[in-house]
Amino acid sequence: MYELLKGLTVVEAAAFIAGPTCGLYLGQFGAEVIRIDQIGGGPDFRRWPLAPSGDSLYWEGLNKAKKSVVIDLARPEGRELAQRLATAPGDSRGLFVTNFPVDGFLSYERLKALRDDVICVRVMGWADGRPALDYTINAAVGVPWMTGFADDPRPVNHAFPAWDFITGAYAALSLVSAERARRLGAGGCEVRVPLSDIAATALANFGLLAEVLVGGADRPRQGNDVFGAFGRDFVIKGGERVMVVAITPRQWRAILRTLDLEAAVAGLEAELGVSFAGHEAVRYQHRERLYPLFEAAFAGRTSDELAPAIEAEGVCWSTYRTLGEAAKDARLFAGNPVFGHADQPSGLDYPVPGPAATLIGPKRGAPAPAPRLGAHTDEVLADLLGLSSGEIGRLHDAGLVAGAVK
Amino acid sequence: MYELLKGLTVVEAAAFIAGPTCGLYLGQFGAEVIRIDQIGGGPDFRRWPLAPSGDSLYWEGLNKAKKSVVIDLARPEGRELAQRLATAPGDSRGLFVTNFPVDGFLSYERLKALRDDVICVRVMGWADGRPALDYTINAAVGVPWMTGFADDPRPVNHAFPAWDFITGAYAALSLVSAERARRLGAGGCEVRVPLSDIAATALANFGLLAEVLVGGADRPRQGNDVFGAFGRDFVIKGGERVMVVAITPRQWRAILRTLDLEAAVAGLEAELGVSFAGHEAVRYQHRERLYPLFEAAFAGRTSDELAPAIEAEGVCWSTYRTLGEAAKDARLFAGNPVFGHADQPSGLDYPVPGPAATLIGPKRGAPAPAPRLGAHTDEVLADLLGLSSGEIGRLHDAGLVAGAVK
Repeated sequence: MYELLKGLTVVEAAAFIAGPTCGLYLGQFGAEVIRIDQIGGGPDFRRWPLAPSGDSLYWEGLNKAKKSVVIDLARPEGRELAQRLATAPGDSRGLFVTNFPVDGFLSYERLKALRDDVICVRVMGWADGRPALDYTINAAVGVPWMTGFADDPRPVNHAFPAWDFITGAYAALSLVSAERARRLGAGGCEVRVPLSDIAATALANFGLLAEVLVGGADRPRQGNDVFGAFGRDFVIKGGERVMVVAITPRQWRAILRTLDLEAAVAGLEAELGVSFAGHEAVRYQHRERLYPLFEAAFAGRTSDELAPAIEAEGVCWSTYRTLGEAAKDARLFAGNPVFGHADQPSGLDYPVPGPAATLIGPKRGAPAPAPRLGAHTDEVLADLLGLSSGEIGRLHDAGLVAGAVK
Repeated sequence: MYELLKGLTVVEAAAFIAGPTCGLYLGQFGAEVIRIDQIGGGPDFRRWPLAPSGDSLYWEGLNKAKKSVVIDLARPEGRELAQRLATAPGDSRGLFVTNFPVDGFLSYERLKALRDDVICVRVMGWADGRPALDYTINAAVGVPWMTGFADDPRPVNHAFPAWDFITGAYAALSLVSAERARRLGAGGCEVRVPLSDIAATALANFGLLAEVLVGGADRPRQGNDVFGAFGRDFVIKGGERVMVVAITPRQWRAILRTLDLEAAVAGLEAELGVSFAGHEAVRYQHRERLYPLFEAAFAGRTSDELAPAIEAEGVCWSTYRTLGEAAKDARLFAGNPVFGHADQPSGLDYPVPGPAATLIGPKRGAPAPAPRLGAHTDEVLADLLGLSSGEIGRLHDAGLVAGAVK
């Protein structure tokens, strides 16, 4: 937990990954993030995977570093409370993150009527308001047909919801940027961040759209071969598989040296009349001739033989391993200062991540846990809306809000 | 192009995707982003895919909305210029994005000595400074072994470099957050954003690390089946494949209605003694019994028959298509207001994206192109460092800087 955003108060009404990661990142950078959920939890509250207690490991991962308010959002008075929280007065407030529909009770129009300079960041599926998920957007933009092996007739989705995570980070950037503009006099705005546009712009941003329009051909499926460079997976002695990529001339010389391939590759260069020493694309163009040399070299060496040389030389590589195996890697998880322990709702003790960024200077602080559902209802109603205990009590009596379930 | 970050000046010395997307997003939100490259271009300058002209479509996609300065970074005087640009005085300056090594000439220590409150956002491979790429980090954290089909013995990398893109967006968030803190009196800092920590925290953030540590079992490879919910790919009449996900009770009822499966599913519920109407996990647990019903229903219907009903009902779906096919979808690219035209270095005319976010209120503005390499060298040296024409001329004569190549 860092304090870069200390002083900001963000209200979040969003389920699943994109909206909640936005709030998570802001909270881990020190903003006060107040999450609104339906009493009993929203559609993501019991999402798998679950702890033995039935608590969702998914939910408590995504909603760390936040406060929790629960409201009956099915009733008009409950919806009005949510609107009022989103538009609470004060320079540091009126900052709202949501994935609720553009036209519903949390529309920008309705919020702006309550607070003219409200900032609303709205994550969406399709830009036109139609629903979508990471996995359907992924199919729509063509990525499953460029993923995996050419000999498999089936398209391959991401198992990891990349579009959700990019959207969440981009939404957080949008909120902090809009808040800066507001503080400098620009007024508020709604910022819409649709998964569909995140995906479309991402593919265009590194040249894939232009490539297919200009060249007329889709990027082929080529297993784990890196496009345009020398990199792919190789099986080493013992059967383990490694991913190896040599991008720069220095890395290329290093991998040839490590594998004793300098002579063989020089012979190939002479035969083909090319030099592989310079631009990576030349190695890519002739990879079908290079791969057999590398396959044989890797197949004759174990991980222990390869690792020291490869790592010393700055070549990018990794063994393929499962997450279970990776979990034992101190550099990634258990011994990584980014991870710590926190009192999570599930009661389980496992390494919990703080922010992915590491600041040089400020102290990191322990990772903040997820809240118990409803733990902050009363505190937030008093703090943001100035409600008295009596008023808050009447909301509880009416079943419009609830506290933590004991 | 929006103006949320107007007034900020960010200097970028970074190659490939993570650092440059950070600068791209900041530039598209209105910051002045000044990119430093080696004279003639850095290691990414000719990265595939290329236009017929030889210009890189990759580079001109990632470096839109930036200015370009070229310096001979191999010589001490050139390195000093880069350091001075990164630490140029002024409230709106001293904001630097880089992927250069932590200990090199662009180290935080060296920059801080020139400007005590400099903010440096450093994207990295491994957190300990070892080099890595998206594709090697992906292998290291276990994602290729949870991607693809169980009947394939090979791990499947992402073809799309998700970790690079998340890192870039998170780095941009970090920069704007640190700038806010500095403006409020906190001083500067270095923010390190390693791909390894972005990946490790992402997997932990939605429960996968806890799942494997608590349950003891890795997430299985299950093709395109969505974990914990009802969603997978189906082949429809005519052979096309669709991705369909029904998350909420309403979407579930809708898909049953669309496919005339209400009776069959009710029968299955009676046989199993469960209800699929409520929590999505129940459908997931019994998916092996549900899938055959859906497979048959989809196989008997064409896209034209399915689309209106599915879309009207708010079910999340998409046909699987290639990027080439998606490129014809006006909602994604050609007719999408996020895209426009820009005078790119390659000279090619193709749809160019502006920022993925759409602001309600401010006008979007045309997408900014990438710069010609070196186009802004003189302007930036005068503006940020206050160099005179004579001084700048001497730097050109010494070959320490260059302008645009005609």
